[in-house]
This record gives sequence, C-alpha cells and structure tokens, in this order.
Amino acid sequence: MFSVTPHHPQGVYVLERCGDDSQGFSTEEKRGLYRAIFERRDVRSQFRPDPIPQAILTRVLAAAHHAPSVGFMQPWDFIVIDDPDVRGAVKGMFMRENARAAAHYTGERAALYRAMKLEGILESPLNLCVTCDRMRGGPHVLGRNTILDTDLFSVCLAVQNLWLAARAEGIGVGWVSILVPEELAQLLGLPAHVHPVAYLCLGYVHEFLAAPELQQKGWRERVPLETLVHHNRWGTAMPAGECLEAHPMRQDARESQTP
Amino acid sequence: MFSVTPHHPQGVYVLERCGDDSQGFSTEEKRGLYRAIFERRDVRSQFRPDPIPQAILTRVLAAAHHAPSVGFMQPWDFIVIDDPDVRGAVKGMFMRENARAAAHYTGERAALYRAMKLEGILESPLNLCVTCDRMRGGPHVLGRNTILDTDLFSVCLAVQNLWLAARAEGIGVGWVSILVPEELAQLLGLPAHVHPVAYLCLGYVHEFLAAPELQQKGWRERVPLETLVHHNRWGTAMPAGECLEAHPMRQDARESQTP
Repeated sequence: MFSVTPHHPQGVYVLERCGDDSQGFSTEEKRGLYRAIFERRDVRSQFRPDPIPQAILTRVLAAAHHAPSVGFMQPWDFIVIDDPDVRGAVKGMFMRENARAAAHYTGERAALYRAMKLEGILESPLNLCVTCDRMRGGPHVLGRNTILDTDLFSVCLAVQNLWLAARAEGIGVGWVSILVPEELAQLLGLPAHVHPVAYLCLGYVHEFLAAPELQQKGWRERVPLETLVHHNRWGTAMPAGECLEAHPMRQDARESQTP
Repeated sequence: MFSVTPHHPQGVYVLERCGDDSQGFSTEEKRGLYRAIFERRDVRSQFRPDPIPQAILTRVLAAAHHAPSVGFMQPWDFIVIDDPDVRGAVKGMFMRENARAAAHYTGERAALYRAMKLEGILESPLNLCVTCDRMRGGPHVLGRNTILDTDLFSVCLAVQNLWLAARAEGIGVGWVSILVPEELAQLLGLPAHVHPVAYLCLGYVHEFLAAPELQQKGWRERVPLETLVHHNRWGTAMPAGECLEAHPMRQDARESQTP
C-alpha cells in the first residue's frame, strides 16, 4: 500500500492508488500534501534574500485565510513587514529576551543553546505578524463559549496552512517565539483587542533540511508516534493488531541517519 | 500564472508550472496541497459509518506528529475513541453546554442556531482527543519562555496537519469546541498536567460541501482577504500595485454562488 518513489525520498507515507470517490485525490496530489507536511521545516539559517512575488504571497495568505475558525470567526490579520527599522526593532527585542532565555541553561546545554541560530528576522526578505482580533464577530461567537481561546487556536490553524503553502512554493518559514507580545503589539500599533499570535520570517531558501534542525543538532529527538497514541482513555494502549508502529515510522529512522 | 482546471473547480490557486529548485513541487503536487487547504471542511452532518483502516489512521496521525512544535517539544498525545459509552458521555456534555450557548441568541438568530447541527460525535466512526502535555521536555523548553502557551499553539498546528491529511484521504473532520475542558479531562482520565486541546470527529463522508456550512446557511460570510492585510504597521494598507485582491478572491465569488 505504501511506496517509496525516487522523486520523494520520504514517500513512505504516499498511497500508490488514489481514492475512488468523486472528490478524491490523485496519487500525485496526495504526495504533494504529504510532502508539504513531512518536508516543512522551521527555517532560521537558510534564507536567500530574493523577494517573494506579490502573487505568491497573496496565494500563501489566501491559504492561511481558508483555515478553519471557530464559528467562521476568521479572527486573523496579516501584517507584512519589510521595513528595516521595524525589523531591526524586533531583532533587538529578540536579542534581549534570548539572552534571558539562555540563562536557563548550564554547561554543554548552554553552549549548544548559544550556538544555535533561532531566527532569521533580518536575513529573510519578509516578516509577517499574524494577529488575533479577539472581538471579531461580536460578543457571542458560535462555538466559542466554553473555551475562549478557540480564537487563538484558529489563528494557529491559519499559520499552519500558511506554513505548508509556503513549503509547496519553495518558501521557508520560521516562527520567532522569543518575543514579548505586549512589546510587539506596541511596536506594530495593534489595537488593545488584537493579540500578536505569531511572528514569522519568510523567504526562499538554499535548501530545506532533511530533518528538523533541533534534531540534527542533538537538542531533542522525535518521540516515537506509537507512545503517543491511547485508546478511549489516557494510558490505555491500542489493542493488538492495531498498534501504530507501521511504515510511517520509517521516516524517523531516515531522519536519525541524517548527518 | 493561475489557471482553472476542470479537475479542480477551485483551481484558481494552482500554478501552471512547477518550481525549478531541486526540492520543488510539481504542478500536481502543488494542486494536492492547495486542494486539501481549500476543500477542507468542518464536517458535522455528512459522516458515513465506514470504519477508518488502521493504516490510514496511522498516516493521518503521523502527519499531525510532524507538525512544528516549540523547541521540538511535540507536546501532543492522541486518544482514539471508539467506545460508545465514552462518546455518549461526551455527547451529553455537548448537549448541556450547547443549550447554554443557544441562550445567547434571540429571534431569527436563535432559530438558526438551534437548527444547526454542530457535531457528529455518535455518527462518525471515530472520535479523537488531541491533548497537550504542558510539562513535556522539562521546565525550560527552547523558545517557550516569553509565551507559555506556545505548547498549546503547537498542538493546534498538529491538528491542522491532521485535518488536511484527512481531507486528502477522503476523511472529514469536525472540531467540537462546545465542551468544558475540565469535564473532558476527567472523563478521559488525563493527568493534571495534560490539557485536552481539541475534540475531533473523524469519518469518511458522503461529500465535502463546496463552501463552509456556516457560510452556506447564512450564519456568517467570508471576510475579503484584502481587508486583513496591513503593511509594516496595523492599519496601513499595502502600497498601490501590491494590493491583495487578485485571483485568489475568485474563490469567494464561487462560494457565494453555492446554494
């Protein structure tokens, strides 16, 4: 049922035959979706300076805009940032907070932390802040009554759409999380009810790494999927014959072999 | 640069030619990714009872597991739920909270709200709770110092990977947000440090609707993308010639025409 194709070294996830429903995906279409998912990276060091054409940026933003949102709230906005002054200010905020973060580690771990490049704010041609308007849609948004943060969650779903569309376009994305949201909101002039959820760096790349950079550099390993799956209740394993250690885990073996 | 193909009625987003970098996507692969993004739906009413084969479920979970996460934290777990008793209990929780939610509306809006089906807990063959282990990776997770909720955000990114992979497999997904997390956590036996982020219903479907159900039923319209894009600072429009009302917005015209 699975196959590895030369075109797609991580193609173990891709079905040989497409579905037979009228809205089904062809083998190649499925491969495209799974390639985007498995070959997407959090990019910090491989940015090229080439500008992103407006038509491509629009398509990537449209992908974000078609994410699911609670009650069709669509709480997101997109601030496209190319101004060097704004980016310089964000870089300054990052450097201060990253120095604080580094203080949490000691010894080898501290050395490894300090050696890692965690953002591409100035090298990437474009930064993008994805925000959440927490008032959009009025006081009662359908589906947002027991969990108020479903608006923030919706924005994250949009970010992932954007991340995958960017990958298919050959554009790398990195999420810079080491920032104080209140400072960022002030810098970008956000209204009080608008929260900056994600600060992203976007640009074409020299390459997409074969495995996540934190894994390659020995910071942390991928957790085996089968240890993360429970049946009906926390801590109960799936019944025999339904365990989840099938083909897809081959990918992790591949990743581990990456230098 | 864009084209509509008969195979893909919403294909306005799909490039005619593939990129030329060695890691580039073919036209068909790009189409697959964009189809998943634009044809994904929040499914409540179209579930078929057919079981989801284990190999397919594994692949969809692997897609989720390959989402980005702060500091490669991978804070997610997946509780696969087929037990009718567990699902019945969740359905009961939903019905109580949904009755409370309905009380927020009056008149026509209340009638419309009550007429809408907002979950497929019992009709779908599988429910899935995606959780966040807030302690995974120890006290200092790389990148999670200024924004503690980046672990919850990471879980949402995983949910979107799962949602898109499911779409490519012909499987519909619905997110049931009208639940009290503490009650759900107790029912599923979650440890205190594990938070239930998403409760999903999964199953093959009779069809994927041409537009979001809330839009089709007149609950809420899609916001025009160009009103959501700012330049360098909140409230500043993109410069002339860089406005964002190009081809991709054709899709919304199509959606509006859907009966």
